[in-house]
Amino acid sequence: MTIQSFIPPRRILMGPGPSDISPQVLQALSRPTVGHLDPLFVGMMDELKQLLKYAFQTENEFTIAVSAPGSAGMEACFVNLIEAGDKVIVCRNGVFGERMRENVIRAGGEAIVIDDEWGCPVSVDKVEQALIDNPETKIVAFVHAETSTGAVSDAKAIGALAKQHNALTIVDAVTSLGGVPLKVDEWQLDAVYSGSQKCLSCVPGLAPLTFSKQAIEKIQSRTTPVQSWFLDQSLVLGYWSGEGKRSYHHTAPVNSLYALHESLLILQNEGLENAWQRHQAMHEKLKLGLEKLGFEFVVDEAYRLPQLNAVYVPQGIDEAKVRSHLLETYNLEVGAGLGALAGKAWRIGLMGYGAKEENVALCLRALEESLTQ
Amino acid sequence: MTIQSFIPPRRILMGPGPSDISPQVLQALSRPTVGHLDPLFVGMMDELKQLLKYAFQTENEFTIAVSAPGSAGMEACFVNLIEAGDKVIVCRNGVFGERMRENVIRAGGEAIVIDDEWGCPVSVDKVEQALIDNPETKIVAFVHAETSTGAVSDAKAIGALAKQHNALTIVDAVTSLGGVPLKVDEWQLDAVYSGSQKCLSCVPGLAPLTFSKQAIEKIQSRTTPVQSWFLDQSLVLGYWSGEGKRSYHHTAPVNSLYALHESLLILQNEGLENAWQRHQAMHEKLKLGLEKLGFEFVVDEAYRLPQLNAVYVPQGIDEAKVRSHLLETYNLEVGAGLGALAGKAWRIGLMGYGAKEENVALCLRALEESLTQ
Repeated sequence: MTIQSFIPPRRILMGPGPSDISPQVLQALSRPTVGHLDPLFVGMMDELKQLLKYAFQTENEFTIAVSAPGSAGMEACFVNLIEAGDKVIVCRNGVFGERMRENVIRAGGEAIVIDDEWGCPVSVDKVEQALIDNPETKIVAFVHAETSTGAVSDAKAIGALAKQHNALTIVDAVTSLGGVPLKVDEWQLDAVYSGSQKCLSCVPGLAPLTFSKQAIEKIQSRTTPVQSWFLDQSLVLGYWSGEGKRSYHHTAPVNSLYALHESLLILQNEGLENAWQRHQAMHEKLKLGLEKLGFEFVVDEAYRLPQLNAVYVPQGIDEAKVRSHLLETYNLEVGAGLGALAGKAWRIGLMGYGAKEENVALCLRALEESLTQ
Repeated sequence: MTIQSFIPPRRILMGPGPSDISPQVLQALSRPTVGHLDPLFVGMMDELKQLLKYAFQTENEFTIAVSAPGSAGMEACFVNLIEAGDKVIVCRNGVFGERMRENVIRAGGEAIVIDDEWGCPVSVDKVEQALIDNPETKIVAFVHAETSTGAVSDAKAIGALAKQHNALTIVDAVTSLGGVPLKVDEWQLDAVYSGSQKCLSCVPGLAPLTFSKQAIEKIQSRTTPVQSWFLDQSLVLGYWSGEGKRSYHHTAPVNSLYALHESLLILQNEGLENAWQRHQAMHEKLKLGLEKLGFEFVVDEAYRLPQLNAVYVPQGIDEAKVRSHLLETYNLEVGAGLGALAGKAWRIGLMGYGAKEENVALCLRALEESLTQ
């Protein structure tokens, strides 16, 4: 087999991520690499922290991007905040809640699992009851926007409950950041991670992360080392910190950070509220069209994420074949169902740069043509 | 502060990495993002595995790129291969040997440390004695090419010794891969990791990794789960495996993998042996010039890496000031000393695309001008 340069086609990415990326961001990505301790790069990292704080709506000093995908951002929260035996309430209403439980176990914590139906939000009442039943709970972990179902949970209410019961929160904001309201400080959230490749429309591979003062205090009062060297945020802080000399931890993914900087700049220039409104407006347009085509949504309207539209596959349709057809004929990627929804649902993403009229129009027309073939 | 797009200058990167990157690789990096489960992308990953096997000189089926920097590649080896209480001989002759020891401890292993002077290779005799003294040793861990000093160790001899004593090897090949001979199969090495940003001249952020059959067997016979979910290679394998359906683990860093594919293709087209010879030839030219300028090398000629030239800073020189001058005046990055060599040495990299006449010439001339100012 002779291998050639890989020249990908231009896909329209309307799955659960990676999302469509602006040419501006791809251009930033390919700018010349500089050293990870270059003073100019260090200056860019300071700007990046500021842009991330805006996106997260936080003043948390510890606001960075983990040099790895969202799953590593999740793990960074659990391994830093949990010590052996810590009780953690884990809310499970989709794939990523289950992954959180896995993380708790592997970090040596004790998971108290609260289950809700796939497609439903986390039940705030159940969280309250679990906190009452388990007064020694150290952490409440939940997914703000479940990428596997498209349901949004009430992060504000859960954040407030956790604070009342002296527990910290770990929040999965992988799909929510930039797409729906997320207010880290106002909602009193403690450890919040995201991914670069969803509503920020940056390349996959980075995990924005922010820790509150209380989260940092929990880390600083640990009596055992963090089990991961790579994800030990007390070491990482020495590199991202603006005070004095930067200390080397690992070689930062320089070019990917250029791209994140650019994508966050685009978000700041648009304005967070405008971005949220645009996601909502595009969702409503898509929803009307999908309903006309006879689709039913997995999630009730009240808890539906505009950026991730999970719909049931119509009866009698070979779902994989339709997705292949969309990809091959229209270069259009739509997401398959995941976990309990595998084979039963499609996930149509309207994320970041991809939440726009031309994508909605193409998707509706291509689906209509494919289903009536 | 108004934030603008970040436009980096074109630096000449002659530090310990990231190294100079070919425009061809930066171009590949910025091609349109496709989905991480797109059939075309899956095909590219198969090619990438094949190219990585060539670079590592291995037939190991498990040959992939970890979606994170070299330090995560290191951690992937330790957390997958070590179970609580496993005895691990760790050879320490620089910064990265010490980092290996940290990894052993955090993975619950027992570290038996063999120390050698910074700038010296790992003593094969000491490894043999340690294996005799500790017959229950499960793993021997060492750094093939110490990035902190520029010393190469005899990976072939240590690999053979470990096999004689029924131990596996974990090998840091971050700086060696592509720059000096590394023959994973012939030398019977078991778990070998590298970094994308050294002699492969790709962007930083990926860690090539290969596991031998015996390494896989050790992982499969574990009685406890791997402590890291993100780095659990039995889960990752489900995504990288060519057999049957790919299962989702995490979102792959699509664009960075395009770049790695391209950089490995360049290496294959040049030929490994030719690349090794080029590094050696450029090193000899640089060495002659540096000696004329009065520089002394940290490492004896017999153990010197061509791609990482550590030289003592001349007496009476403000080393940080000179490095800043080189960067500001010539856009030339030269590496500072690390660990025990901080403030005492410079590290001049000749890695991958950067191992070329124009870089050697610039470096020598710029150093001469800067030191005689």
